[in-house]
Amino acid sequence: MAAFSKVTPKIVDELRAIVGSDRLLLPNDDIEPYTHDETEDYVFTPEVVVKPASTDEVSRILKIAYRERIAVTPRAAGTSLSGGALPVHGGIVVSVEKMNKILEIDRENLVAVVQPGIICQVLQEEVEKVGLYYPPDPASRGSCMLGGNIAHNAGGPHALKYGVTKDWVLGLEAVKADGTILRTGGKLLKNVTGYNLTQLIVGSEGTLALVTQIILKLIPLPALRKAVMASFPTLEDAARAVTRIFFERIIPSACEFMERQAMEVTEKKHGEKFPVSGGEAALLIEVDGTREDVLDEQVERIGSVCSDAGALDLILAEDSSKLAKLWKMRRSIGEAVKGLSAYREEDCVVPRARLPELMTAIREVCARHGLTAMSYGHIGDGNVHVNILKLNLPDAEWRTRIEAATHDLFVRTVALGGMISGEHGIGFVQKNYLGLALSPDVIALMRQIKSVFDPNGILNPGKVFPDA
Amino acid sequence: MAAFSKVTPKIVDELRAIVGSDRLLLPNDDIEPYTHDETEDYVFTPEVVVKPASTDEVSRILKIAYRERIAVTPRAAGTSLSGGALPVHGGIVVSVEKMNKILEIDRENLVAVVQPGIICQVLQEEVEKVGLYYPPDPASRGSCMLGGNIAHNAGGPHALKYGVTKDWVLGLEAVKADGTILRTGGKLLKNVTGYNLTQLIVGSEGTLALVTQIILKLIPLPALRKAVMASFPTLEDAARAVTRIFFERIIPSACEFMERQAMEVTEKKHGEKFPVSGGEAALLIEVDGTREDVLDEQVERIGSVCSDAGALDLILAEDSSKLAKLWKMRRSIGEAVKGLSAYREEDCVVPRARLPELMTAIREVCARHGLTAMSYGHIGDGNVHVNILKLNLPDAEWRTRIEAATHDLFVRTVALGGMISGEHGIGFVQKNYLGLALSPDVIALMRQIKSVFDPNGILNPGKVFPDA
Repeated sequence: MAAFSKVTPKIVDELRAIVGSDRLLLPNDDIEPYTHDETEDYVFTPEVVVKPASTDEVSRILKIAYRERIAVTPRAAGTSLSGGALPVHGGIVVSVEKMNKILEIDRENLVAVVQPGIICQVLQEEVEKVGLYYPPDPASRGSCMLGGNIAHNAGGPHALKYGVTKDWVLGLEAVKADGTILRTGGKLLKNVTGYNLTQLIVGSEGTLALVTQIILKLIPLPALRKAVMASFPTLEDAARAVTRIFFERIIPSACEFMERQAMEVTEKKHGEKFPVSGGEAALLIEVDGTREDVLDEQVERIGSVCSDAGALDLILAEDSSKLAKLWKMRRSIGEAVKGLSAYREEDCVVPRARLPELMTAIREVCARHGLTAMSYGHIGDGNVHVNILKLNLPDAEWRTRIEAATHDLFVRTVALGGMISGEHGIGFVQKNYLGLALSPDVIALMRQIKSVFDPNGILNPGKVFPDA
Repeated sequence: MAAFSKVTPKIVDELRAIVGSDRLLLPNDDIEPYTHDETEDYVFTPEVVVKPASTDEVSRILKIAYRERIAVTPRAAGTSLSGGALPVHGGIVVSVEKMNKILEIDRENLVAVVQPGIICQVLQEEVEKVGLYYPPDPASRGSCMLGGNIAHNAGGPHALKYGVTKDWVLGLEAVKADGTILRTGGKLLKNVTGYNLTQLIVGSEGTLALVTQIILKLIPLPALRKAVMASFPTLEDAARAVTRIFFERIIPSACEFMERQAMEVTEKKHGEKFPVSGGEAALLIEVDGTREDVLDEQVERIGSVCSDAGALDLILAEDSSKLAKLWKMRRSIGEAVKGLSAYREEDCVVPRARLPELMTAIREVCARHGLTAMSYGHIGDGNVHVNILKLNLPDAEWRTRIEAATHDLFVRTVALGGMISGEHGIGFVQKNYLGLALSPDVIALMRQIKSVFDPNGILNPGKVFPDA
């Protein structure tokens, strides 16, 4: 990696000429929000923050950075859990927060055209107003932005039925490191006109290009949702129930699990009980659709399957307020668990049926390294959020143990046919483990692709790829 | 493009040492099937055809080709309509026909692991036996192979509800030009561990790597299907009906249209009438699911929408034999139309709501160049197969007119927000029009990506990219 140039006062003047004084921050301004994201306690201070309001401004900013070899960290809402938005090499943070418009909701073609600074939930609520649906819903959907969702190919609970962000992106406008504006795809459900650059850019964590406009697929809103929540003696019992639900030809719109310990922490923090008690783990299984009677039949069948699989306690959430309450509690687990202490959140993903083996691996690895973990996540797609807690460990001891445990856990995950990140991205905190999941040949190929887009390595440096 | 080396007798011996005598053909063997695909009347003779039976054999073959700079044309079933399987530079044809196994149908994880030589319909029937579903169904599904489906990101009627091939590919094993074996993805619904090489390789038309193993997503089989067929005074009326169906929150499993002229040719050829008469165009709208009553309600609503939109004639196909007959006739249109004369089949795709404008453009362009076209295709996703017929035109005149008409049609398609290929690929016959759809910067970037995978340009040369 070439060393980067510093942002000189002359360059600050050039940047100010592009975005104006009110959309440029320096370290002695209120720059603190741009020094971190939601990843552990990392802090890196950029030399300058700029907030372009148009693709042209982004292009002009990148041309300067390219010419001067200055590190550029693209930033959306900064909700990354892998350090994706950390300006680890200082330089310029390009925040897309001012590019926050829904440019079009095209009801005839069922697409939306948006800017990267739009908040995920805002988009979802706007399209719902006209009876449409944009399914990807990461836990942070109330604050995360589409630009970040695209960078990390965000998932969320409804990915089980509806897929992840990539499955909803039909086209992009993006700016390459040298300022070149690229357009890919279109309002098109089918397209094999050249290579699929759209899907190469989605999930590339801001290292290939800075996305400035997004064409998203929409579908008619499934107006009704119902759910079953059930507790099970063991996670294996819960996993067996999940497999049987698929055998029943039901594809749930979400299928979440949570460990009892994580539920208890959440109950304590929020002063409210989950409606099912007992056992090691619980499932929240949701179905959606347009007909009440169909959903009623499905939740009843899911309930029977859970009972047959040994459920200890079970409730049906058949109206929207009951369901909303369940989701609110499910979504608050992350915050509750992370409130306990410093932590590292792993984002392992394995083939669905191997999730019980992954849970065993988590327990064994944590026991070996004297660490405590609480897990929850998306059992339907084999994606587990493992929160390993620092608790009272001294800093140095924690660092040593967590790196060793992460290594061991990832080795076990990959041995189960899994990968080290399902929906958070590799970013800064996972990058040195990439070689556990991908072969040297594959990583070399990815580095070469990176060089094609960004020969000087200025775009989001220090991310994805292992340190040399 | 560097010139390619010839396949010398010594190299033939080396190849024979890998695959054996019975899986190697020379020009004086029965090599004719490998000299063409389903694209117009193009014929190119390879210097040698090899039929590897394993990934290792593919790798060893490519190592030789790489070392010697010999052109390699990967081939699956040769059903390409864009010239994707034509060995335009001679050299080695690598046929994957011997790699035709379903390696695994994993019912717990809902995935299949297959080799590239498996026939699409064979896979579909095997997974249906265990109640599962692999939706992509190009018209040639009875003969095309998954390797080719992946190369061209094949679509088909059910892409409307279920997406195209890329949406079902979770992971690949593929061999790079230099023989390096790459593995991407896994049995994973979520994965952001490095760049999405899987989706870069899907649709790359065999120019980046030769796919040797495929992990496919499956879903529970929707056991029931019903359909509506309706004729309309004009294509605009038909298109309006389609938009209204989506407004009804119904996502059909297929939504096909056919021009009256194409229907008449098909009726004449097969001695059987379509069940709806009159008007310029007809729609075939199918819904699928698991509950009879739900589908009955949907076909009734679709029927009402069609009537309100001005349908002249309408039938409901509520049982499977009636439906199978409709599909058989729909699927035979291509063959019937192409049987009339030499032809060029365009594969234009536009945003769904702009399809009537595309139809106008087709009529105008053909009129201007004195050509006859018959169209049919996937109105639900804006993808039209335009068959332009040579009829009695002299060869030279036909060549001049068809190239000019193709150019003009593609210009109009792109002006409507469309692309020049929806599901057939760019291949050999569309390559010189790529610049109408993509900017020079985007094409340059794709060429650079090609160079990263295949620095000597030996993999499927003469495809996708415009002649220099």
